[in-house]
Amino acid sequence: MTKMKQVYLDNSSATKIDQRVFEAMLPFLQEEYGNAQSMHSLGQRAKDALENARSYVAKMINAPPEQIIFTSCGSESNNLAIKGVAYAYKQRGKHIIVSSIEHFSVLQSVKRLVQEGFEITYLPVDKYGFVSPDDLKKSLRNDTILVSIQHANPEIGTIQPIKELAKITHDAGSVFHTDAVASAGIIPVDVNEIGVDLLSLASATIYGPKGVGALYLKKGIRIVPLIDGGIQEFGRRAGTENIPAIVGFGKACEFTIEEMEENSEKMMKLQKRLIEELPRKIEYIYLNGHPEIRLPNNINFSVEFVEGEGMLLFLDQKGIYVTSGSACTSRALKMSHVLQAINIDPAVAQGSVLMVLSKYNTDEDVEYVLNEFPPIVAQLRNISPLYAYFLKTGKRMEAGPGTDYDHHHEA
Amino acid sequence: MTKMKQVYLDNSSATKIDQRVFEAMLPFLQEEYGNAQSMHSLGQRAKDALENARSYVAKMINAPPEQIIFTSCGSESNNLAIKGVAYAYKQRGKHIIVSSIEHFSVLQSVKRLVQEGFEITYLPVDKYGFVSPDDLKKSLRNDTILVSIQHANPEIGTIQPIKELAKITHDAGSVFHTDAVASAGIIPVDVNEIGVDLLSLASATIYGPKGVGALYLKKGIRIVPLIDGGIQEFGRRAGTENIPAIVGFGKACEFTIEEMEENSEKMMKLQKRLIEELPRKIEYIYLNGHPEIRLPNNINFSVEFVEGEGMLLFLDQKGIYVTSGSACTSRALKMSHVLQAINIDPAVAQGSVLMVLSKYNTDEDVEYVLNEFPPIVAQLRNISPLYAYFLKTGKRMEAGPGTDYDHHHEA
Repeated sequence: MTKMKQVYLDNSSATKIDQRVFEAMLPFLQEEYGNAQSMHSLGQRAKDALENARSYVAKMINAPPEQIIFTSCGSESNNLAIKGVAYAYKQRGKHIIVSSIEHFSVLQSVKRLVQEGFEITYLPVDKYGFVSPDDLKKSLRNDTILVSIQHANPEIGTIQPIKELAKITHDAGSVFHTDAVASAGIIPVDVNEIGVDLLSLASATIYGPKGVGALYLKKGIRIVPLIDGGIQEFGRRAGTENIPAIVGFGKACEFTIEEMEENSEKMMKLQKRLIEELPRKIEYIYLNGHPEIRLPNNINFSVEFVEGEGMLLFLDQKGIYVTSGSACTSRALKMSHVLQAINIDPAVAQGSVLMVLSKYNTDEDVEYVLNEFPPIVAQLRNISPLYAYFLKTGKRMEAGPGTDYDHHHEA
Repeated sequence: MTKMKQVYLDNSSATKIDQRVFEAMLPFLQEEYGNAQSMHSLGQRAKDALENARSYVAKMINAPPEQIIFTSCGSESNNLAIKGVAYAYKQRGKHIIVSSIEHFSVLQSVKRLVQEGFEITYLPVDKYGFVSPDDLKKSLRNDTILVSIQHANPEIGTIQPIKELAKITHDAGSVFHTDAVASAGIIPVDVNEIGVDLLSLASATIYGPKGVGALYLKKGIRIVPLIDGGIQEFGRRAGTENIPAIVGFGKACEFTIEEMEENSEKMMKLQKRLIEELPRKIEYIYLNGHPEIRLPNNINFSVEFVEGEGMLLFLDQKGIYVTSGSACTSRALKMSHVLQAINIDPAVAQGSVLMVLSKYNTDEDVEYVLNEFPPIVAQLRNISPLYAYFLKTGKRMEAGPGTDYDHHHEA
């Protein structure tokens, strides 16, 4: 029996660890098991490895090492940034601005703060997912302490004009945070160039291990820790440092610095082919996000008259791993808040498929997808009452009352 | 050149991962890299591994799997327990009781809550480190929402009468949390038998990997999440699950369930020999904690007329890795708050050495320590002005004004 071809296209949820990263982690999973806070030589070697990793994470975003705080994941970085700034600056004001297409770890953090008297403004986005600098300008108030707008959206790939948004925020005297989990390591991110105060990173999306993220915190910006306790991470994040994962993250950043450009060019070619060819092979299919100002690994299509879940499962049977949205929501099977915000018709949005490339993907992978995907859509449409109705009448059915626009979260 | 013998006795800071645990983690650091929230088969296998690990962590403490929440470390578990309960129950009252010898992640969490209007009672301990049930009874008030007392102390090994303390707390209508990071997996912990509502666990002290901990949360007890976002961990802890570390933690628990008794007996023999022999070989040395009601891996001595740091560094040169207190504080080089609470004279406390055994330690290790340690103490005393004064006068010097009793934390 021939082993089925595997094409992994869910790289915004998790990437395969680079083999060189994995090998760098191995000693710290075995004989180098010291606690970085212990003063003996085993502890000192762990501490040295920690600081070495920090220097590479810092270098990737052109920050000083002492402004990098390691966390356990991108979601923790976002929570630490938002709640941390909110608690530290609440005497000055209790108004926060976010975009409506932020990651759930941002949206749920600000929702939590509402219970503590904070007021949130959700900026709308246009049909491509862009925040309008004018909207931000108009929303800033005397009591606005924080603006959080993601660098690029993990679902539709749209890259925001962060430099401009950060400047507007600073001109109004507020702190600016950006979630760069989807973008850092995929496209260039230079904290000085874009001028942000806080920036969230994760390892698992740039060929590093799970279990580690980081927060860039500009000198002079105050935060209240989320995890209090020991003196780790400059007193801003307690808990025994996850040295193997941190070492892996550092290595992943080291390789990213050297290889990102080449990887991005490679992914862009594959992305271009999928974006151009899929609509030639499948009717009634629409690209979500901006055709050009998007992450080089992101492909998001809405396929009319089919369900995202059906496509996902049929593709899975062919060894093609995709998702219908963010991993944090896919099991909840609700409509993506991002597609809702860019005003995609719910009936169309439910047929969305997100393909996120990695440096490992090849031309053959893309050809395999171009061959396997269209017949799956045809097969699903064959059993779709919506499609039958459309074929018969030339009209689309109205979305029924069962359509669920709500987020899956109940506080 | 013969390689120097290595005796690692800092197992409350970190343990060496069990080789079988390491091997169980390997697939999830390589080809099984799926996000547990992704619906394709790679994601499903990650999800299955996650739930399998959860079942073993649960089993180790006799809890149902759905009452285990994975976190990134013991400190996060303690923060989640304390802040989580405080925020969830604050309408009912704002009084919290903790012991004065809790881990910093407990003490700093309640200190943080003071800024938000909570009031904290710190229970004193006796010379062995025991909390008095009567003291707890007297401290409970109508507005007491939470009592947090550790199961066993990581520095002096004292095991608290948790069952009794939990009962007293419940009789008064409050929630009871215990930090079992130092004890679970070393001595039996059964959440039903001891009757606690929340219990913190960590992996790195039971031959599992760093980067993962857990919180047992009894059905019906409410908490506010620390990390908001996706629907992971029953909506109580967002963020991409650290599958390799969680798998390792599960395996570590699986082996612990089978092998803890045997390991404990082995460690107790080594512990007994060190506790009996060191005072025969070194004068003016005092055991901290209770001689019997203590963790089977814990040895903590105060050695008069020497500095802990000096012993630590000289022992390090002999390949013996110890610490002078908790890993979270050792780099701060301040007096242990635990030794202060059990009323050790500061001049004596600064000569403390903590040895925590693991299942890997052998009779040879102990003999090596018994041979190498006494000459180091003698060497250090030779250059000690305090010892010279004592030899000359038969009297001890008074502690000078430079003695630092403060915690290292400035909020």
